Amino acid sequence: MKDKTFLMIPGPTPVPESVMTEIAKHPIGHRSAEFSKILENVYTNLKYVFRTKNDVIVYTSSGTGAMCAALENLINEGDNVLSLVLGNFGNRWVKIAQSRGAIVEKIEVETGSVIDPEVLRKRLAEDTEKKIKIVTLTHSETSTGAANNVKALCEIIREHGALSVVDGVTSVCAMECYPDEWGIDVLVSGSQKGFMIPPGLAFLTANERAWKVYEQCKHPSFYWDWGAYKKSVGENSTPFTPAVNLFVGLDKALEMIKNEGIDNMNARHKRHALALRAAVKAIGLELVVKNDENASHSITSIYPPEGVSVPDIRKVMKNDFDIVVANGQNALKDKIFRMGTLGFVCDRDLISAVGALEATLYKLGHKFELGSGVAEVIKNLG
Amino acid sequence: MKDKTFLMIPGPTPVPESVMTEIAKHPIGHRSAEFSKILENVYTNLKYVFRTKNDVIVYTSSGTGAMCAALENLINEGDNVLSLVLGNFGNRWVKIAQSRGAIVEKIEVETGSVIDPEVLRKRLAEDTEKKIKIVTLTHSETSTGAANNVKALCEIIREHGALSVVDGVTSVCAMECYPDEWGIDVLVSGSQKGFMIPPGLAFLTANERAWKVYEQCKHPSFYWDWGAYKKSVGENSTPFTPAVNLFVGLDKALEMIKNEGIDNMNARHKRHALALRAAVKAIGLELVVKNDENASHSITSIYPPEGVSVPDIRKVMKNDFDIVVANGQNALKDKIFRMGTLGFVCDRDLISAVGALEATLYKLGHKFELGSGVAEVIKNLG
Repeated sequence: MKDKTFLMIPGPTPVPESVMTEIAKHPIGHRSAEFSKILENVYTNLKYVFRTKNDVIVYTSSGTGAMCAALENLINEGDNVLSLVLGNFGNRWVKIAQSRGAIVEKIEVETGSVIDPEVLRKRLAEDTEKKIKIVTLTHSETSTGAANNVKALCEIIREHGALSVVDGVTSVCAMECYPDEWGIDVLVSGSQKGFMIPPGLAFLTANERAWKVYEQCKHPSFYWDWGAYKKSVGENSTPFTPAVNLFVGLDKALEMIKNEGIDNMNARHKRHALALRAAVKAIGLELVVKNDENASHSITSIYPPEGVSVPDIRKVMKNDFDIVVANGQNALKDKIFRMGTLGFVCDRDLISAVGALEATLYKLGHKFELGSGVAEVIKNLG
Repeated sequence: MKDKTFLMIPGPTPVPESVMTEIAKHPIGHRSAEFSKILENVYTNLKYVFRTKNDVIVYTSSGTGAMCAALENLINEGDNVLSLVLGNFGNRWVKIAQSRGAIVEKIEVETGSVIDPEVLRKRLAEDTEKKIKIVTLTHSETSTGAANNVKALCEIIREHGALSVVDGVTSVCAMECYPDEWGIDVLVSGSQKGFMIPPGLAFLTANERAWKVYEQCKHPSFYWDWGAYKKSVGENSTPFTPAVNLFVGLDKALEMIKNEGIDNMNARHKRHALALRAAVKAIGLELVVKNDENASHSITSIYPPEGVSVPDIRKVMKNDFDIVVANGQNALKDKIFRMGTLGFVCDRDLISAVGALEATLYKLGHKFELGSGVAEVIKNLG
């Protein structure tokens, strides 16, 4: 049905009407007092959402841009980087580090698993010469729906003296994340995720330890250069022409997040993810991430039941129920489907999504007790 | 007056209502068939607007992003770059090249002047060892309103065997620019200029000669990597999550450009710029660019009359007539003001802008024949 599409992919995510109407306004000059005031709000409220005392830089780019901005301000050719890889986006850190001439080593786990902190501790203990300068990791791995214990991992990285660089693209807003308390040195995220605005902005925050490494970077990339952005944050400005309309939308979205409260927002995502996981199991499907403790609160990956294909599930969900769910990526294509519960998602959406998933599987011949998924959602939503 | 602001800065520029209403629509999935169709149109129509047979790459970034994308795919540390500098944006090439470890030499002219092709020819003739690998230049220098003879300069660069890398940020759409015929090797532009959409997208096209140099680039930047984008163009896709809403707006804007015709669009900008220049002279102001032949067709820089300050002109234009004009940049701040006639600008806008400028100067005590500017506009518009 026209205009009824509900996005349950891991981004873009649904955008509130009050944000869209802000974005729909004619662009204003980016050097005007009016825009400067918007930037002041944005920079202040981003610190609240990121739970940090440090500045949060905003780039006009995809989320991948902020990932590049992280490593391209830290790595010199020949540096050693250790990448903790849960899937596709963990591997993106590897590629970016390699593109800067770093020597990259991976600790990789199988689909749906997370990094065992003791494995990391052991590997770092072997690095007696302290060659490893940076450890990259992913909070919520968008390609599998697995979520690392960032707190435990970053403590180990800190003890070793390396920098932790964390992909929070689908975790910030959705999951509890305390960069200052946990010792995350660099944290990045993207706008089309928990921030409830369309794609086109990306975020980065770095602490003092990271800034010291930045100062040793021989060729920080011009567009991503932290120094230029930090200066601009201090002046409620941007170094280059920003995506004005998206900033205006972000200002509105951050106001909504503040009104809900970041703790409440995190709790809502947790409730939704756990309710969805319980529902999926009740209707006889297998989850990619076995353990609730290792599950992302923004994205849930699911194996189709025997005899039912992922493309068919996606097609019926879209055509009959106007819900878009994501396919697997790369080797996981057509092997799993992924449901996002990220950003502007209410309890009713969970009920309708699980109901629609039940209806879809019923149409496609899967045998299960009709209503059992929705029942689990209702119980879990509390 | 609320909602009446008319942007005559060199970007963001006015956006048509029919484009804004597209941008206001809820984002769609960037891997959907629907979005793929939009990308197909966009990639096809960009070739038309850029007047090239080569692919046009679209980045989610500021225009500066495309400038980085140009040099960060070509330069290796220690390469020699010659930069032809007319002002602030010519100097941006210098900074980007230096950020990649290039050895940069400048040919710089004074404010409002352009590069004499014979000066370039002479300098390149001295480079008998052909050390200079890349020459950067600006078509329309946004900080001064001067426009180079790109055709003549690129011919000389081509003869020498270097690559020409051209900033077309405020020229593409506005001024005649024929990359294939003129031998421009790399050409970049930005969305919030002639393309009539808000900031957030940037464009790059490169020819075969440039692609050969790209293949020798040791560390192309991951986010800007030409190879990834070219592959995506072939698949009507994007390598990373794009600014979906801006692409939907771009699709609509390109349709409008096609309907007007790129030749007509170029001619309109020329008519407007020359009419504005004639009007400004008639009311007794001095132009920064003395000669019509060296003038940008998108941005006109003007000295205030004696005894009238740039801040006052900008304030009265904004407060009394809802027109935003730009200040000078850096050393030119408060020395000149700049009027953009870029993108979605009709003949009526020219009349009202010059009328408002007359009214502003009248209020600020400048002595001139009232109506003389508007009279010139009317005569020049034809």
